[in-house]
Order: sequence, then structure tokens, then C-alpha cells
Amino acid sequence: MIVVMKIGAPEAEVSRLGAEFEELGLSPEKIVGKTKTVIGLVGDTVDLDALQLQEMSPWIEQVLRVEKPYKRVSREYRHGEASEIAVSTPAGVVLFGEGCPIVTVAGPCSVENESMIVETAHRVKAAGAKFLRGGAFKPRTSPYAFQGHGESALGLLDAARQATGLGIITEVMDTADLDIVAAAADVVQVGARNMQNFSLLKKVGAQDKPVLLKRGMSATIEEWLMAAEYILAAGNPNVILCERGIRTFDRQYARNTLDLSVIPVLRSLTHLPIMIDPSHGTGKAEYVPAMAMAAIAAGTDSLMIEVHPNPAKALSDGPQSLTPDRFDRLMQELSVIGKAVDRWEAVPALA
Amino acid sequence: MIVVMKIGAPEAEVSRLGAEFEELGLSPEKIVGKTKTVIGLVGDTVDLDALQLQEMSPWIEQVLRVEKPYKRVSREYRHGEASEIAVSTPAGVVLFGEGCPIVTVAGPCSVENESMIVETAHRVKAAGAKFLRGGAFKPRTSPYAFQGHGESALGLLDAARQATGLGIITEVMDTADLDIVAAAADVVQVGARNMQNFSLLKKVGAQDKPVLLKRGMSATIEEWLMAAEYILAAGNPNVILCERGIRTFDRQYARNTLDLSVIPVLRSLTHLPIMIDPSHGTGKAEYVPAMAMAAIAAGTDSLMIEVHPNPAKALSDGPQSLTPDRFDRLMQELSVIGKAVDRWEAVPALA
Amino acid sequence: MIVVMKIGAPEAEVSRLGAEFEELGLSPEKIVGKTKTVIGLVGDTVDLDALQLQEMSPWIEQVLRVEKPYKRVSREYRHGEASEIAVSTPAGVVLFGEGCPIVTVAGPCSVENESMIVETAHRVKAAGAKFLRGGAFKPRTSPYAFQGHGESALGLLDAARQATGLGIITEVMDTADLDIVAAAADVVQVGARNMQNFSLLKKVGAQDKPVLLKRGMSATIEEWLMAAEYILAAGNPNVILCERGIRTFDRQYARNTLDLSVIPVLRSLTHLPIMIDPSHGTGKAEYVPAMAMAAIAAGTDSLMIEVHPNPAKALSDGPQSLTPDRFDRLMQELSVIGKAVDRWEAVPALA
Amino acid sequence: MIVVMKIGAPEAEVSRLGAEFEELGLSPEKIVGKTKTVIGLVGDTVDLDALQLQEMSPWIEQVLRVEKPYKRVSREYRHGEASEIAVSTPAGVVLFGEGCPIVTVAGPCSVENESMIVETAHRVKAAGAKFLRGGAFKPRTSPYAFQGHGESALGLLDAARQATGLGIITEVMDTADLDIVAAAADVVQVGARNMQNFSLLKKVGAQDKPVLLKRGMSATIEEWLMAAEYILAAGNPNVILCERGIRTFDRQYARNTLDLSVIPVLRSLTHLPIMIDPSHGTGKAEYVPAMAMAAIAAGTDSLMIEVHPNPAKALSDGPQSLTPDRFDRLMQELSVIGKAVDRWEAVPALA
Repeated sequence: MIVVMKIGAPEAEVSRLGAEFEELGLSPEKIVGKTKTVIGLVGDTVDLDALQLQEMSPWIEQVLRVEKPYKRVSREYRHGEASEIAVSTPAGVVLFGEGCPIVTVAGPCSVENESMIVETAHRVKAAGAKFLRGGAFKPRTSPYAFQGHGESALGLLDAARQATGLGIITEVMDTADLDIVAAAADVVQVGARNMQNFSLLKKVGAQDKPVLLKRGMSATIEEWLMAAEYILAAGNPNVILCERGIRTFDRQYARNTLDLSVIPVLRSLTHLPIMIDPSHGTGKAEYVPAMAMAAIAAGTDSLMIEVHPNPAKALSDGPQSLTPDRFDRLMQELSVIGKAVDRWEAVPALA
Repeated sequence: MIVVMKIGAPEAEVSRLGAEFEELGLSPEKIVGKTKTVIGLVGDTVDLDALQLQEMSPWIEQVLRVEKPYKRVSREYRHGEASEIAVSTPAGVVLFGEGCPIVTVAGPCSVENESMIVETAHRVKAAGAKFLRGGAFKPRTSPYAFQGHGESALGLLDAARQATGLGIITEVMDTADLDIVAAAADVVQVGARNMQNFSLLKKVGAQDKPVLLKRGMSATIEEWLMAAEYILAAGNPNVILCERGIRTFDRQYARNTLDLSVIPVLRSLTHLPIMIDPSHGTGKAEYVPAMAMAAIAAGTDSLMIEVHPNPAKALSDGPQSLTPDRFDRLMQELSVIGKAVDRWEAVPALA
Repeated sequence: MIVVMKIGAPEAEVSRLGAEFEELGLSPEKIVGKTKTVIGLVGDTVDLDALQLQEMSPWIEQVLRVEKPYKRVSREYRHGEASEIAVSTPAGVVLFGEGCPIVTVAGPCSVENESMIVETAHRVKAAGAKFLRGGAFKPRTSPYAFQGHGESALGLLDAARQATGLGIITEVMDTADLDIVAAAADVVQVGARNMQNFSLLKKVGAQDKPVLLKRGMSATIEEWLMAAEYILAAGNPNVILCERGIRTFDRQYARNTLDLSVIPVLRSLTHLPIMIDPSHGTGKAEYVPAMAMAAIAAGTDSLMIEVHPNPAKALSDGPQSLTPDRFDRLMQELSVIGKAVDRWEAVPALA
Repeated sequence: MIVVMKIGAPEAEVSRLGAEFEELGLSPEKIVGKTKTVIGLVGDTVDLDALQLQEMSPWIEQVLRVEKPYKRVSREYRHGEASEIAVSTPAGVVLFGEGCPIVTVAGPCSVENESMIVETAHRVKAAGAKFLRGGAFKPRTSPYAFQGHGESALGLLDAARQATGLGIITEVMDTADLDIVAAAADVVQVGARNMQNFSLLKKVGAQDKPVLLKRGMSATIEEWLMAAEYILAAGNPNVILCERGIRTFDRQYARNTLDLSVIPVLRSLTHLPIMIDPSHGTGKAEYVPAMAMAAIAAGTDSLMIEVHPNPAKALSDGPQSLTPDRFDRLMQELSVIGKAVDRWEAVPALA
């Protein structure tokens, strides 16, 4: 349920109501929008009467029930207003959201060694990326495949961060590693295979860093939003939803089916920002540019693109990685669409 | 196999070779490209020796084997050059192809009566569409649902064609109806449910009107191209491939999953032009604009969009139809992206 | 809607009611069950009042609304009683149904020549099969693959029928071929790719031979039942539903995913008999026996199994075909399960 | 690679070879089969020459390369022989394997309170089950749904174990809980959503209790076997593979699509025992019996069936749970099929 306050409702009245709701056994959450304040109520609200609640204060404009199974992530919960997620990076705060310029995240699948990660970081930064991606802990289908360099790779990411000012996005696979990953990352990633690892969701929800939640390979949109709800319910409101391709009956040419229709669908269902990963979404470098262009035209807030200095020698995901040169050109191509839809930052960042 | 002729190869030499290939039991097909002529060979080519073929004429530049199971539709078969499909309409020839402006097809799911179809035709024409879509024969899941007005609806489409100069695209469901449908249509549509109705494919391949081949609900890209190959093998080279959403595990919010990654995939595999149908692809009018924008950015050659004067009262597919007013606005929005990628016709046609 | 008559309701009263319903613009259908007679009503029943109908005769026990979108195929339409479909064969009538012994259909994918089809017919007959399957018209993904011998193969099937007394099941792909196929077949098959070829469904519904309706590769159970409803609505009540594997994300080891859970699901939804085709369902001969055993244990009414005298040389579907020897052994194995569930014919037919 | 020793090869020779292989940087694993001993070699075997290895001892019969990406779980790794997994329970050792009687696991989705779990345990034991299932930690789509009673529920499972002698199977969701779950369970379950939680796989592989590995909702068979390989590679050879339904395009009647064809497929690919869970596989109690029957006929080694004293009031998965009475009847029905295929224990256990 949400309680929409009238414009100008005094702070004290909102607090008083919050206290009253707590006495009713609910968990009130204050959401300050651009013009109005909303109090979100989650808990056992089945027996509550909206009309009765409304009478609790003359400053209440409306009491609405959120009919969806996800509450805090629903667009209604913020009374229709999109979230803006502010992420601190050495080069300043970067905003993710419907009204913000498109944020580009780029980098290799895994952190292989210091020179490759620092070199890649410089290149993607120069091309306009705001974040560096790079796996320290890698989920691999085979136990005999390269599993990532683990904790030591986190140190290399930090070196790249210091060298470039880029924010860092890296994946956590195990609740036991959360502390060290969250210490190294500006955004903590939960991968597709762990989208319904509920223990992990609860724990990333109980720490402060923003979370990038990749959609599971065969997760419905509702399951994905429920996974995000786990994180919000645990106290962390800063979740970015990342589509990375779903599994369908055809995998001959593209590794996954990038589901771009999630963009308008999520926009109508949730206030959370949206990221598209065309690299995993297609699995093939040559298809990445077209899908990145399409994602922008469809309204994404952010892109994640794999870039590797030498894709042919990459320890993982080489076939879907762009070279730094191709990424440079791609950013030029993207800027054309980005400007057309008025979502491109006026002056590209300089390294 | 394809035989690439040198630039300037004399017409007579190409004909002579064609005759020789026929004597070898092959079906040679002359394809005149922008700079070179290619002779396509389909048949029992397994035992042919490329080197030996090459010696048949000094004007042969190269003999290449097409490794894919689809031959005539493969990009190699035209030595890498895209097809341009020219469709005659009362208002002139319209070209579909990679190097041409994006062609928009619009109209209602079914032809309901004369005034609605003529009114819609005028509206979509004014907004910039080149073709009117409208079903006379409708494939419906239930035998008790409206099945289309059949032959009489073909007459109404003709009235709309006369009134506006738009080309007509309408579906044929039964080989028995092919003659009357082909007489009324400028492009004959084979629907998703008939994509592997091989009898129908052979028969639309044996007539002259260009064919719009919709992708089957769970057809792989290879199966789709093989279906197109049936049409080309029967003699009709003019096939447009239309993606209209595939069936996946999630149908809660969107009716199908629009697979936009077919755009770069098809581009690399085939020379045939591509159309995207975001109306069937999403099943919901509110998601159509974002997906239409994305399709253009990804490189589609054409769009098919359902427009109905009163979606709430449509006899079929109302929820996915735009009003004429919304379609007007959409065409404005699309022109922004279309111009950004240099695929938008400079001056919209006037009726 | 269905009108359940009381036990002992006079024939004349049932007829009188039928006539009255026709006057109301409905299409009454008399269904004589084991103990009761039911009048099925399809048409515009939305505005009818069940109570008012009930007062039309003291012999009416109950008036019930069929809530499902499929009416005639629903189990309710026969007031819960399963259909028994009687098929004439040279060796006598064979019954398909929940209360009948399991019927086995066997034979090659396609009819290749007279000796192979007659030899196979003798072998499968000796092993206990009641029907011979064999394709004259073959739906093939590639236009360059063997398309079946067509009309001449129908003659060969007839030879095998005469020689063995087996019934014949063969596929019709085109409405134009229906007459000759129906003349040659004891059961006319509509293949998976044509499950939603509605023109074909209407036409097989308008002729007399029983119809085997294969499930489309990605058809939901509801769509499948709606396809059957097309046939019943056109006048032919004799439809057998055949599951032949659906398309899922995994095709590495089995070609399709045989969905055996349709057996209990269909049993609860429809009165029509069920057939399982483990050959197409798995695509691999070695998996066929386990799945055939499972189908019987799950309650199928019938099995379709591909048998070829020399699978390695088959013109189509060799990898999924059993040799006649393996089929002999399989029938022995099946009889063990068949007897355990009391669905195996006491004395196997002798050739 | 596997090194097959001749019959009668002396123990000392096998040990000597093992030591030599270790010196080559390989990880030799001795597998004692019914007649022969095999040495499995995993590691960097690409450059090894089979012929050269063969010359290392006259007692070597054959050296074979395992071509599949999964090594230790492949059937070849045990030279074609199936594993038998012996699980200790208070009532004695229970064997899972191709040559053993079918093992039935039954119980509620979650442990709700002491009386319900103990009562259910007594009932399923009396009907012939060998293991009690019951969730202490529950993966739930919604953060607001009942999450299981956690550690306290493990105590209740122990009470049921003491009271009945049944073995306990319960799920671990978090590496942090593994110690307490492994202490309480006779078999530790990894759920479908965690099938590719590689951190968890490594940790259950590094402890001693047998592991039940459920197939992920959209996991290919190869991915599933690779997940099992993680566990074996970490040192635990005792893995049971449990199919519980996959996600497909149709979820209207059954919650998942139970993929019974995995039984013959897995049988040919791996030596590990197979379990089928028709309760999750269909999601509906009325479909469970037919699918359990089918699973036995197809050759499963084990069944997992949800039983709840009062399904209508279950805190989770009520619709798919059988009552104890229905389970009694089911076990009678299953015994008919089980005896027909000679996989049913002669004398059912008495409580």
C-alpha cells in the first residue's frame, strides 16, 4: 500500500504518520519524490481499509493498494516516478535513471592481468565509458575452465580504478566473498545464474553498495522483479536491472536471445533503472553494435559492453568482445542515436 | 555453388556457360550485381570440382561452394550483395532493401468494412506508410472467432488501394485461395502458422507477386531461411522476411518475444530484405513505439504496424493496434531515428 | 452448454428439444453416452439462462455451461465420458479410447518402394501393430530433400494394406490432396507443422475419415485442443491427439522434448483418445523403448513407432527408426507394462 | 582419459601406475568396478599419447580418451559401469543405482512443525518410502513468502529421523549453512535455482554427505552434468541427479514440463543414479501418479514425491502435494509397474 501525501505536507506530519503505521505492525518507508512525498507500506496490509487510513491525517491525498506481488520495486510504490541511482566513482557521482544520460559500462569478461585491465580501462574511459567491468570471480560451466583470479583480481581492478577514475562493477558469487567484493566495487553485480540465489540477494540487500541484478537465463520478468524486491526488502534501494539475453529454442547463431522488449515493459512496471548487455545477449561481437543501437532507441538507461585488448586470446568470452578500436567506433555510432533521443552526455568525459 | 564472373565478362560468355551448366544437369541462375555477374548453381554439386569448373572459361574469376543448407537465399549466393525488391504499387515502385529508405506497412489486423479500411488507408498514407495491411482470411486460434470476411474483403482492399495509391499486403492461408489473393495483393503474405506449410510455399513460389514470409512462432533462423529457400527454389526471388515475435517461456506482459537480433544475424546470412512487426511482436500497443524505434536503430529495412480507427472495438488484435493519431506521432518519432541512421525518405510521399 | 438428460429420457423428447434449440439459433448435437444422453449446444449461448432452459422439459436433469474456450472436445461436453473412436480396417474395427487395449501404429517415415513397405507391414503386423504408418507426402525442412513419392506412394500403401489387413495412417499436407489421401487412408494425419493450418483443419473436418492430429512443435495444450475443435466443429467427431515432442531449449541429445505429462492433462480436459509418438519425440532409436514404456504406464491409448527395414539407409528419419527385430523385442517389453496396467490385448493378432 | 586395467591386475601395479601419473601432473582416481579396475585421469591430458601410456605397464588393457566435456561423471569414466551410491540411514544402508530397487523419497515441501513432520514421516515410511524430504531453508520467489523455519526445522527433521529410521534429504541454499545442513541430512540437496551456484557446488563437493543435484529450470543436460562434475571434481563421488521439470512455453495446466526422456539419455551418458520428482515436475497432485508410473517404466532409480497431511493448508506447494492416503494408494499402484520391470523391493519395509 502507498500513502500519497498532499503537496506541502509538513515533515512532522509525515513522521507522525510513520510512527503510527509502525504501531500497526507495518514497515513504513518514506519516498521523497520531485513534488510529493509518498509513504510506502509493506507488511500484512490485507485487512487494512484504505478509507480508514485516509482519515488518519488531512494531509493524506490518497491511499492506494499495490496489486502486484512486487511492492517496493513497482512503479506505483514511487507513485509513478522513476528512481535515480547515484553511484560514487573517483571521477564523481554518476546517475542511472530514465531522465539521465545513458551510462556506458565496458571492459573485459575477466581480469586477466594488471596491464590488460589498466590498458582496457584507459581505452574505454577515453571512449566515454563511466564504469569498468571485469570479473574477479567467474561463474564457468566447467570446473576445469578458468575460474577468475579471485581476490587478487580485485586488487587489479582497484589499480585500474585509481589510474582512470572509472567506477568498478564486478560480480559476487558467494556470500562469503561479499565483504571483499563490496569493498572493491562501486556497483556489486549479481550474475544471471545467481538471480534466484536468495541468500545472496538478502546479503547484497543488507550492504550499501548499489547492486546490478542480471536477469536469469529463463527468469520471467515477474521473477526478476521479485528478485530485486528481495534486495529492496533487505534495505538496499539501489538496484539496476540488467537484461543479458534469455534462453530460447534457437542458439545456432546468437548464444542467447536479447529481449529488448523488457525496456518498455520494465519502464511501465518499475521505477528501477535499466541496463542492456548486448555482449552476453548475442554472444558474438559482430551483432553487438546493432543491438546496442537498438537498446538506446528503445530507451535503455545504460549499456554494458565487453571490450578486450585481444579478443582472440581472451581467457573467457572472447567471441563476444569488441577490440578497443571497435569500441571507439561503436561509441561514435551510439552517440548518433543517443543524441537523436536526447540521452547522450553533451561533452564526453576526457581521460 | 556460385561462379563469380570477372568484371566486364561478355553477356554471350555468361549465356554459353549457363548452357554448359544445364548440360551438366545443374540449374544455373544468373544474378546481375552492381559490379559483377554471378551464376548460381543449385543441384547435385557434391561431385563437382571447383577447379575444373573454373577452367571452363577465362572470364570466371572464382568458383565458391555455398556451405549452408540454404543456397539461393544465402548472402554468398549473391556474392555478398543485398537484394533490392521492387514492388509495384499504384503510386509507383517501392524498393525494399538494405540500401533503401525504410518502408512502413500499416493497417488493421482484419478488414472489417469498407469505411474503416478506406479511412485507415488514408490516415496511414498521410502519415507516410507505403503499404496497407489488412486481413481478408484470418488464422484464428478458435473456430468460433471471426475468421475474416474472405473474398469480399479483398474487394474492400482494392477500394482502399484505388482510393489511396497504397500497395496492399494481405495473407493467403490456403493454396485454393492463392489466385484471388495474388490478384488483389501487391505482396502476398504467408503467416507465421504457415511458415512450414510447404505446399503453400511451393505455390507462392510459383507465382509472380513478391512474398512476405513471417517467421514461425518457434522457427529457428535456419528453418526460416529454408522456408524462404522453398519459395526461391520454386522460381520467385522476391521474398521479404518478417520477424513477428517468437514464443518463449514468458508471456505475461508481452504476447511474444520480439527477436530483434535477427536483424544483424539475417544481414550476415542472407541477401533478402528484413521487416519487423512490433505489433504482433509485443501484442500490446504501448510497447510498439519503443520496439519500432529499436528496429530502425538495429537496421531493419521495413516495419509493419497495426493501426485501427478504434482499437477497443476491433474484431481482432485490438490490444496491439495503434490509433491513427498515435500512428501519426509514432511516424514523427521514427523519423528522428530514421534520419539519424540515414534511412528515412527525405520528403514523405503525398497521396 | 450441455443439457444432460435424465436416464430413460425418451428419444422423441430428445428430438423435440433438439428442434427447439435449433429454433433458438443453436447447433444441438446429440451425444449418447453409456448411461445418459447429453445434448451439446454450441453457438451464441452467452445470453441463455440455464434455469430457463432446464424448464423446457421435465426430462432434463441438468444444464451446464462449458467454461473452456474449446467446447466439443472438452470432457464436459460428453459429461465426463471418454470417446471411443472406431476405425475400420481390412482386419476389422479397431477401437481407440481410454477403456480399450493400446493400439500400436508402426512403419517407416516415408514409403520408399513397394517391397520395403510391404515387408515392413508384414513385420509390424506380426509383432502386434494394428496400423501401418508411412508418408507419401513428406514435410521436409529443405526443398532439396526427398519430398515423398506422393500419389504413387498412396498406391503402395494400399498394396501393403491388402497384403496385411493393417489399417493405413498417412499425412495430408495440402487441401488439394485431401481427396486422394482420404481415399487411401483409414486415418488421415495432420502433421505438427500444419496443426494451425486452419484451412486444412476445416477440410479434414468436413470429410469422414478419422483424423490424427499431431501437436505443433510449440503449441500449447489449449491451442492443440482448439485445433481439434476446428475439426469437430466442421462435423468430424473422430479425432485422435498425438504428442510428438515439443521444442525446448535443449536439443543436443534428444531432437525434441517428449511431453508425457500431456497424458494426464488431456485425460482431464478432453474426451478424445491420446497417441504418443516416441520416435519423433526423441529423434533417436535408442531412447524410443524407454519412452514407449513410459507412455503406457502414464496411460496413453495408442503408440506410433517408426520402423524401417534398414534405418541406416532410410530416405528420412533413419536415426529414430527401429529395425523390425528391435520392434519385435520392443513389443514384448511393452506387453509387460501393458498387461500390468491391464491395457494389453489378450491374444496378439496373427497375420 | 581412462586407463582400463586387465582383469587380475595386481593392486601394487595399480598403485605404482597411480604414482607415475601423479608425477606427470595428473590426478589419477582409482575406480574399482565389478570385474575390472579403471584409473581415471583428469588434468592436462591433451598432449598425452594413449599408445605411450599403454606401454607403461603390461597390465594395462586399454587407454581411452573421454571426449565429452564432463569427465568424472561420464559413463566412460567408469568404463560403462553404473555407480551404486550407498547412503547410511538409521534403518540401514540404502542403495541408489541402476541395478537396485527403486528408492522412494517422500515428505512435505517444508517442515512446518514437529507433529506434521513426524506424522508424515510415519505415514510415508509405512507406505514404503526410505527417505523423508522436508525443507528447512526454502527458496521462495517472493521475499514476503514463508522462507522455511531454518535451523530449528533441522532439529524437527532429526526428531522424525529418530522416530522412524528414515533417511533425511533437505536443501542447502547458502554455503554458510552447509555445515549444519550436512550434519542433519543423510543426503544434502542442491536446488534447481542453485544448480549453477558454483561456490555451493564446490563446497558440497568438499564434504562427505551424498548430494542430490536438481536440474536447473532451463539447464541443458550438458550443463547439468557439468554441475555434477564440479561436485565430483571437488572430491565427492556421490551425486544423484534429480529431474524436476523444465521451463517451456506452456505453463497453463502443468507448472513445469517433466522431461522423462532424461532417463534414457542420462543412462547412456553418465554412471550416476537418477531421481524423478513428478511433484515439482507437474505442480499438480492429480498429475503426479501418472508421471510417477511413467518414470518407473522409463527406468528411473528413484522417485521424490511431495506428501502433506493437509495439502490445502500447506505453507508451500500445497497444490502439488498428495495426502498420505493418496500416497498409500500410489505406492500400491507403483508396485505393479515396479514389479513388472523387476525394480521393486520384494518385501516393503515395516515401520
